[in-house]
Amino acid sequence: MLAQRLIERKRDGGRIEPGEWRALVLAYAAGHVPDYQMAALLMAAFLRGLDRGETVALTEAMMASGLRLDLSHVRSPRVDKHSTGGVGDKVSLVLAPLIASLGVTVPMMSGRGLGHTGGTLDKLESIPGMRTDLTIRRSVQQIERLGCVLIGQTDEIAPADKKLYALRSATATVESIPLIASSIMSKKLAEGIDALVLDVKQGSGAFLPEFERARALAETMIDIGRSHGRDVVALVTAMDRPLGRAVGNALEVKEAFLVLRGEGPADVREVTLALAAEMLVLGGAVPDRAAAHRQAQAALVRGRALDKMREIISAQGGDARVLDDPDLLPRAPVCSDVHATDGGVIARMDVRAIGAAAVALGAGRSRLDDEILPGVGFDIRVRPGDPVDAGQAVATVFATDEEAAAHASEALLTAIRIGAEAEPLLPLVSHRITADGIETLQT
Amino acid sequence: MLAQRLIERKRDGGRIEPGEWRALVLAYAAGHVPDYQMAALLMAAFLRGLDRGETVALTEAMMASGLRLDLSHVRSPRVDKHSTGGVGDKVSLVLAPLIASLGVTVPMMSGRGLGHTGGTLDKLESIPGMRTDLTIRRSVQQIERLGCVLIGQTDEIAPADKKLYALRSATATVESIPLIASSIMSKKLAEGIDALVLDVKQGSGAFLPEFERARALAETMIDIGRSHGRDVVALVTAMDRPLGRAVGNALEVKEAFLVLRGEGPADVREVTLALAAEMLVLGGAVPDRAAAHRQAQAALVRGRALDKMREIISAQGGDARVLDDPDLLPRAPVCSDVHATDGGVIARMDVRAIGAAAVALGAGRSRLDDEILPGVGFDIRVRPGDPVDAGQAVATVFATDEEAAAHASEALLTAIRIGAEAEPLLPLVSHRITADGIETLQT
Repeated sequence: MLAQRLIERKRDGGRIEPGEWRALVLAYAAGHVPDYQMAALLMAAFLRGLDRGETVALTEAMMASGLRLDLSHVRSPRVDKHSTGGVGDKVSLVLAPLIASLGVTVPMMSGRGLGHTGGTLDKLESIPGMRTDLTIRRSVQQIERLGCVLIGQTDEIAPADKKLYALRSATATVESIPLIASSIMSKKLAEGIDALVLDVKQGSGAFLPEFERARALAETMIDIGRSHGRDVVALVTAMDRPLGRAVGNALEVKEAFLVLRGEGPADVREVTLALAAEMLVLGGAVPDRAAAHRQAQAALVRGRALDKMREIISAQGGDARVLDDPDLLPRAPVCSDVHATDGGVIARMDVRAIGAAAVALGAGRSRLDDEILPGVGFDIRVRPGDPVDAGQAVATVFATDEEAAAHASEALLTAIRIGAEAEPLLPLVSHRITADGIETLQT
Repeated sequence: MLAQRLIERKRDGGRIEPGEWRALVLAYAAGHVPDYQMAALLMAAFLRGLDRGETVALTEAMMASGLRLDLSHVRSPRVDKHSTGGVGDKVSLVLAPLIASLGVTVPMMSGRGLGHTGGTLDKLESIPGMRTDLTIRRSVQQIERLGCVLIGQTDEIAPADKKLYALRSATATVESIPLIASSIMSKKLAEGIDALVLDVKQGSGAFLPEFERARALAETMIDIGRSHGRDVVALVTAMDRPLGRAVGNALEVKEAFLVLRGEGPADVREVTLALAAEMLVLGGAVPDRAAAHRQAQAALVRGRALDKMREIISAQGGDARVLDDPDLLPRAPVCSDVHATDGGVIARMDVRAIGAAAVALGAGRSRLDDEILPGVGFDIRVRPGDPVDAGQAVATVFATDEEAAAHASEALLTAIRIGAEAEPLLPLVSHRITADGIETLQT
């Protein structure tokens, strides 16, 4: 009877009290509220919204449904990063070891790819032997020893969120700002962190393409963080083109390894360093962002971040030799160049279509139970604004067979628009959002 | 994948095409679309609405999910009545045999009580031996022979509606005009009728208390009827006081038997005759409403309706002697008068509270699986506007024990407001709504 009353109230635009959210989420996690009642409530919440207090209460209820990483005995501050997801976003693979190498603890819990975007967990699992399903106990031990762990959401962490997320996927109730924010924050708070940096993507390839929606999501998460005494800082970064050149799991890992050596594409490096500077300042390791930026850059160039990644991969059962010999990573059997049919400049890129083409190759999932092919994907050699000649190789496709390669080439050529002039690009890191407000970084 | 796409579209205020409604409802009835997806869709439909074409398509899809009464070989026209439900509404028990006695076929499929209102099926089942669960085959045979059958919705009729209705009850998605209208009409059209008369209740005890919502429901049902070439006429009748004196199943049957003899409360008689006149004209039995009204009245006074009821009860296994000896109906063991605590006039009646008090006695259901106690209820001897003295017996309670009787008396005294003057009452039959528009009958 409780669920029905709450559905009715939310349906009519009313408010569900914190104690009611707690009771409802616990009853749902325990199987006492059926999926169909929760689905009706989620749709009502999607269309009527949740206010600030409701969002905080829902977050807490989902967090409280499971265990938390108890890191209170770890002396160094704990900071994590979360990205709203994009195409070619391999930043976490660099950032986690980089920050840990500078004395700030990173208990990083990542997700799998779904829809057109990739997932850090899938990328990590393309490293031979690498395990991401550590228990909480083993995760805490590794954090104590190495200052970093790279894991997925286990059944122990926020199980109510896991169950609700699966229901939201099936009932078209994913893209709601309070529901997204509470889902992310319930897991992040369960990690036992002191602070969190958000990478909020904007542009055609972002989960929430419109800037105002992306901003509202950041502000909601900052708000939830504040209500738990956690500092949350968000950077708004560009997703109107893929980040870096590589799209696809093993290909992105390989590119991340280049960045870990201070090499690789400039945009991946720049976004990584901007987020690193925020994490280092929030973690109290460096007093200001400019100094933090310099230290992070030095940690890449001097190989400190790379050494940390070696330790992490080894600790999690992976073959750390891949860092020196990326050919040990899985690679698709067919590899063919994609040639521009016209000359001109790269006018713009349809990032969603590029992501979808990579998913079609097997790099991602259309359904939760789809299997990932780690070696497939794209190496995209051009950026918006680049001049191209007809017949020039603009990308390489990695596929399981010739047919898949041909389909992917065609999709990629449609997604990379060649014209007379380039459309304006979003600044790579455009805004910084904190509890104090929003700041424009570049124009 | 179909369901998810349709949920998303309805969520965003879009339209679901007729073919899509058909596919969705069939897949749901077959168990291929899970309850949780349908619940999300129902909530989106509740909040975003359905347009005319969608409502018609949903109705057809639910009707097509089951069998229909094939009455095409029955020569006389088939007309049914549907009431939106009220407290003390025993009109169907009189109307069905009355209309059948005048040569118009009445294939009447009724519902059970839920919430504060009673259900014709529960009332009928208080007649000893009476069966309402006839198969379609037997129902058609009885219609051929007697021109009338009084049954419930079987599993054969609109099973998708049955499944959807149960889901709507559990997910707070009942009170939506397109969902209500399509649910009712899917069953009524499956009855194989030529025309339908609606009794749309307004006032505090109605399912939709506001006149405009009641009117919108009538218009939607008229619209669905028209799209199937069926005439639908609605009368708006008062539910700001109970209809008649009796509230409770066997008590109402007893009162209906009085009306079948041309006796009983004037308001029950008047509403019955107004609806009867519409049905007789729609059925082509009498050319105009005034003449139809006179013929119906004569059929009551001369006992033709009573004789028809005798045949129907016998045919459906009931003990027809109850018509002459109502003491054969079940009666609750405890019966006690309710005395006014103050003098004055009956200012107004809280009909919903009276209905709820009857449900609490066991006359109705709070949950679908609650058992009905046929003999319990109220005999309310006063009407709004009546003068009362302190200590005067205003009603009699029929209950299973003294405690229940005491609770019910208290609830009834709170629901019957005594004051210095009576509040204005709604006209008993206030409006007539047809495909041509709305007409005020009394002011």
